[in-house]
Amino acid sequence: LNIALLAGDGIGPEVIDQAVKVSNAVAAKFGHEIAWTSGLTGAAAIDAVGEPYPDSTHEICMAADAVLFGAIGHPRFDNDPTAKVRPEQGLLKMRKALGLYANVRPTFTFPSLIDNSPLKRERIEGTDLIILRELTGGIYFGARGRSEDGNTAYDTCTYTKDEVTRLAKLGFELAMTRGKKLCCVDKANVLETSRLWRQTVQAMEKDYPEVTVSYEFVDAVAMRLVQWPNSYDVLITENLFGDILTDEASVISGSMGLMPSASKGVHTSLYEPIHGSYPQAAGKDIANPLATVLSAAMMFEDAFGLTEEAEAIRVVVNKSLADGIVTEDLAGKNKAYKTSEVGDWLA
Amino acid sequence: LNIALLAGDGIGPEVIDQAVKVSNAVAAKFGHEIAWTSGLTGAAAIDAVGEPYPDSTHEICMAADAVLFGAIGHPRFDNDPTAKVRPEQGLLKMRKALGLYANVRPTFTFPSLIDNSPLKRERIEGTDLIILRELTGGIYFGARGRSEDGNTAYDTCTYTKDEVTRLAKLGFELAMTRGKKLCCVDKANVLETSRLWRQTVQAMEKDYPEVTVSYEFVDAVAMRLVQWPNSYDVLITENLFGDILTDEASVISGSMGLMPSASKGVHTSLYEPIHGSYPQAAGKDIANPLATVLSAAMMFEDAFGLTEEAEAIRVVVNKSLADGIVTEDLAGKNKAYKTSEVGDWLA
Ligand SMILES: CC(C)[C@H](C(=O)O)[C@@H](O)C(=O)O
Ligand SMILES: CC(C)[C@H](C(=O)O)[C@@H](O)C(=O)O
Repeated sequence: LNIALLAGDGIGPEVIDQAVKVSNAVAAKFGHEIAWTSGLTGAAAIDAVGEPYPDSTHEICMAADAVLFGAIGHPRFDNDPTAKVRPEQGLLKMRKALGLYANVRPTFTFPSLIDNSPLKRERIEGTDLIILRELTGGIYFGARGRSEDGNTAYDTCTYTKDEVTRLAKLGFELAMTRGKKLCCVDKANVLETSRLWRQTVQAMEKDYPEVTVSYEFVDAVAMRLVQWPNSYDVLITENLFGDILTDEASVISGSMGLMPSASKGVHTSLYEPIHGSYPQAAGKDIANPLATVLSAAMMFEDAFGLTEEAEAIRVVVNKSLADGIVTEDLAGKNKAYKTSEVGDWLA
Repeated sequence: LNIALLAGDGIGPEVIDQAVKVSNAVAAKFGHEIAWTSGLTGAAAIDAVGEPYPDSTHEICMAADAVLFGAIGHPRFDNDPTAKVRPEQGLLKMRKALGLYANVRPTFTFPSLIDNSPLKRERIEGTDLIILRELTGGIYFGARGRSEDGNTAYDTCTYTKDEVTRLAKLGFELAMTRGKKLCCVDKANVLETSRLWRQTVQAMEKDYPEVTVSYEFVDAVAMRLVQWPNSYDVLITENLFGDILTDEASVISGSMGLMPSASKGVHTSLYEPIHGSYPQAAGKDIANPLATVLSAAMMFEDAFGLTEEAEAIRVVVNKSLADGIVTEDLAGKNKAYKTSEVGDWLA
């Protein structure tokens, strides 16, 4: 198994280390061999070679069967959004270059962690939804600029029917393997791109007669995600709405430190925890590695079709939760284990 | 007091009736006279004259010192976002024509209703925030269209420095009268318009040295609103982000049926409940009128500077909650009163 390893910034390297340990252990147990190839990204890459997603990293990713990713972002860039080179540019460049068109973001609950949710138990119990966020189009990649005097700015959101079809197809197919409900999230009462989304999805409905499709405005979904997250199955949406809604969804489960994600690509696919680079914890060996470990599980399953291997990882993660072999964010009044100790235990 | 009355669709007319009763009672008590002038809007206006915001209604609003608004929207338009004439167009046309540039959306809690919140008590207690949403710019009003074959669509988001300054000024001033904290919500790591927002607000900081200003990305705010809503004071943001975040914020208090709002205008200002037209309840005399009554209180205070009158309305609303003179959504196992009965009692 040929895997590119992009540890990135902040806690990225620490949590990636644990996912590597666990992946190697699973590979050994099931008789696979993994060839890991590391590449630089983010602030780490800016420091080393002046660019957040260097060509050398891109080549590593293109040559791999899957990419395991930590996190990027560094506080020294945060209050300077106009800095010439920023870690996030690397992220966007990587998404575009690898054709990572669909960000797959599950939100589910762990029974033992449900009381960590800001929501009441009865609101969150049973939640098991997936948001598919379009990741290489929309206002993230449209034309933007300023007037000559700098006093007027614009951004352009563009979508083509093919872009919508590609994402929606994944959504319909995913819904077929699950609860058979698909919600198309848009703002079709205002935006032309949203009307294109809605028409395109409407035209696809007949090919998936078993899937119940609903169309909801993004503002309504922002509400319902807090009120009744367990009423959703699969949601599909454009890039910017997806950015906002996936983050909103991530905090409702109470298990943000455990949520994995995948980004399906044209060339290769990428697996990453959703928690970000969490710079305050970097280097302290306290970050929760479970989301990254579960991202590796997604990788085994999606990228290599290795379902048993993925399941083995999920089983041991559940066991670590049940036995309290967890980092300080989950330990409560019990003993907190170090990041590396949790990784060793899982492996 | 010259007030334009736009009842609109769904439960609009019923809840507006109660606000009129209460306003008239307050006016009588404090020695004012109110001249109400009604205008058609929304689906009701489409049915009557073919347009959701007819010129005659605009003239009524322009001649008034304030506009009291119910709600617009009708289900028969909902699944047809491409219909030629839609109620929402009236809303957008009205906002633009009246120059309603700032939507003021408070989220606060009523101690007696706190357990209705989907959030746990300790998360929501003490929440008292205001989102200022820019309402006449951005992607709502930019150029949009399709390619000739219909397969590519675009929308444009535009902002000028003056538009940002006008909204931010209101935000700084509001913060000065409250907790002196201002959060500028943007996506400055991606969007040029957001960078203009951030720069403009940054340049204004020196004029309000007492206000602590923070800059947060919209995705982070979508999370923190669910996690720690009580950490915010005043938030300012652009039109589309504001649409999503104000609706998200509205459900966290557990008192959506009570949340009023104001839209500050160049020509006149408008006051409305945030709950929408709620067509399922229309005509049944069961809708909760309190948000509209509290919007009238905002109107007395903001549009006419009548603080005591506003306070009198708030006091009687609190009393209705304490005495259980409430509609079915708040009654629990106790007797539910009709919309009109609540209005009579308050008056
Ligand atoms: C860092 C930023 C550009 C990025 C995005 O908005 O896509 C992040 O928020 C994410 O969701 O991965
Ligand atoms: C109906 C729609 C156009 C409107 C908006 O998006 O502004 C509504 O959602 C609102 O927030 O008032």
